[in-house]
Amino acid sequence: MSVYQSIDYQLMLRAIEMAKNGMFTTAPNPNVGCVIAHGEDIVGEGFHYKAGEAHAEVHALKAAGDKAKGATVYVTLEPCSHYGRTPPCSEALIKAGVSKVVCAMEDPNPKVAGQGIQMLRQAGIEVLVGLMEEEAHALNRGFIKLMKTGLPFVQLKMAASIDGQTALSNGESQWITSSLARSDVQHFRSKACAVLSTSKTVIDDDASLNVRWSELPECTQQKYPESELRQPVRIILDKNNNLSSSLKLFQADGEIVVVNSEEGNLDSPIDESGQFDLAELFRRLAKSHHINHIWVEAGATLGKSLIQAGLVDELVLYLAPKIMGSDGKGLFGALGIESMQDVININIQDVRHVGPDLRLVATLN
Amino acid sequence: MSVYQSIDYQLMLRAIEMAKNGMFTTAPNPNVGCVIAHGEDIVGEGFHYKAGEAHAEVHALKAAGDKAKGATVYVTLEPCSHYGRTPPCSEALIKAGVSKVVCAMEDPNPKVAGQGIQMLRQAGIEVLVGLMEEEAHALNRGFIKLMKTGLPFVQLKMAASIDGQTALSNGESQWITSSLARSDVQHFRSKACAVLSTSKTVIDDDASLNVRWSELPECTQQKYPESELRQPVRIILDKNNNLSSSLKLFQADGEIVVVNSEEGNLDSPIDESGQFDLAELFRRLAKSHHINHIWVEAGATLGKSLIQAGLVDELVLYLAPKIMGSDGKGLFGALGIESMQDVININIQDVRHVGPDLRLVATLN
Repeated sequence: MSVYQSIDYQLMLRAIEMAKNGMFTTAPNPNVGCVIAHGEDIVGEGFHYKAGEAHAEVHALKAAGDKAKGATVYVTLEPCSHYGRTPPCSEALIKAGVSKVVCAMEDPNPKVAGQGIQMLRQAGIEVLVGLMEEEAHALNRGFIKLMKTGLPFVQLKMAASIDGQTALSNGESQWITSSLARSDVQHFRSKACAVLSTSKTVIDDDASLNVRWSELPECTQQKYPESELRQPVRIILDKNNNLSSSLKLFQADGEIVVVNSEEGNLDSPIDESGQFDLAELFRRLAKSHHINHIWVEAGATLGKSLIQAGLVDELVLYLAPKIMGSDGKGLFGALGIESMQDVININIQDVRHVGPDLRLVATLN
Repeated sequence: MSVYQSIDYQLMLRAIEMAKNGMFTTAPNPNVGCVIAHGEDIVGEGFHYKAGEAHAEVHALKAAGDKAKGATVYVTLEPCSHYGRTPPCSEALIKAGVSKVVCAMEDPNPKVAGQGIQMLRQAGIEVLVGLMEEEAHALNRGFIKLMKTGLPFVQLKMAASIDGQTALSNGESQWITSSLARSDVQHFRSKACAVLSTSKTVIDDDASLNVRWSELPECTQQKYPESELRQPVRIILDKNNNLSSSLKLFQADGEIVVVNSEEGNLDSPIDESGQFDLAELFRRLAKSHHINHIWVEAGATLGKSLIQAGLVDELVLYLAPKIMGSDGKGLFGALGIESMQDVININIQDVRHVGPDLRLVATLN
């Protein structure tokens, strides 16, 4: 028999929904939601909105005031136990006199990792862990992956015709997908810590790769006021120093990290074959820029390198209702696969219509 | 204000559902359903099951008996007016003394084309035409297209990895899609008048291209008893007489039409460039074999020819969750398109998961 009642699921779901209010702004911090209740009566709730600002629990405690005493706290991530930019939430919960804490999951941050729960238990508070863990995990795929592996969560965006072509043989490709699909891309960009691309893509398309609020889907705009716009860090691989300052990229707001072999602002890691060591680059970016979630927009070459290095967690593939013929440019380029047993398998998690196009979301590995 | 009441929609929907009972067996005849009612009380219903057997109206009248007098008849296609393999249904409805007939659509068959309706009206019966016409049209896309244009309704089935590859560079391709997708293909075959392929596909895969009842999806088996199995005519393009009698194709039950340039059983039409004139072939097959709905299973060459000739009505594309690399064989081969304005546009009507694969259904033109 489950230790949880129906009301526990309802209130944890509410906490998860609260957490989502920060989806565009908290990066690189995790999204966290918190609900404080007596039985089914909610007395306070809150969410983490931005790095450096108060944690979800603090907002919820403030809203609850004296009513926090004896209450049950539902929180999507283990309350923190360490002094970061804010004091530890476990301490605040103890001081407020709550009697029970239900966490969806332990905090994978090695600075916490069960210590928040331990603090609460030592203070005599009942703590349950693991309610709706999968849903809570989905809130923070970047934060969790980085904490557990040292590598960011990587989404690779590609776009092609239904016969897998990204451009005609003469290179023409604008526009394969519809403006609705491009607006959908803006939504994905706006949730990531960083957008990764190559100088080739930036130069070919004179792409600025920033988030343009006016191009976000209307439903995203409603949740994400323009005044709060956060620009993901733009990381551009530019091995041969081809970027010039006249490009649109440099006109748009937001931090840009150019990775090349000369300037060495990241001590650019090069592997034995003279290519960027992408895993090592990602590890360094995690340390230097707290990047845990990368949205990649690039062509076949980078897409293929990332997939072959096992660095892609999720493929987001837009398929346009067009037939272009296989004399164009293929999605991932030549892979030299000689047996059906060696093809790269993916798992299609979701497919939906985005205007006239389709969007597939698939996991790798 | 509509001339129809809510009950009219309910009973026509019922008639459409009845019609679907014949979807595997009526070819090349149309699917027709009929419901006879007094107000909301159904007194008789029926559907056309097989060419040569009674029409839907006859079954429904038989079930209704004396209760047909003064009743309203809902029928998905205009009642026939001519003596074919069975006597005209309009006459039978008049004799039974029905007072009103609601047809979803006129019969596009030039032998009928409004004359059935005219017969009924002349006998003093009220006739309404056009209720749920779109839904009724969808029951008989092959029959209607052939009657209107002289050409069959053509569905082109293709299967590829998500990067648009149908085989590796060495030709290996078994199996790109899952057994569930292959079972789904069996379902499509079983609804068609004919399955079209090439000697290359037949020889490469030693394909029998028949309907194998044991491989139909379970939900299809439940509606379609093995004892009633109808084999679509198999049409094989074999320009250079490569087929040999030892192939599995010839071991399986069902009619086979081999189209080659020597035997000339269809006076095989060849165009100026020495290729089969596919439109002309289809016209001849319609006359010689009453083929109004063709399910095509072939490779890039035939797929491309059909599309370029504007003969494909619907593309049924299975996409497997695999990345194969663009050094394999592409879906439609080279098309020599030099501008994005010249790509072939399709309209995606439906996409769904079939086991681990996706199935897209798209219309062309």
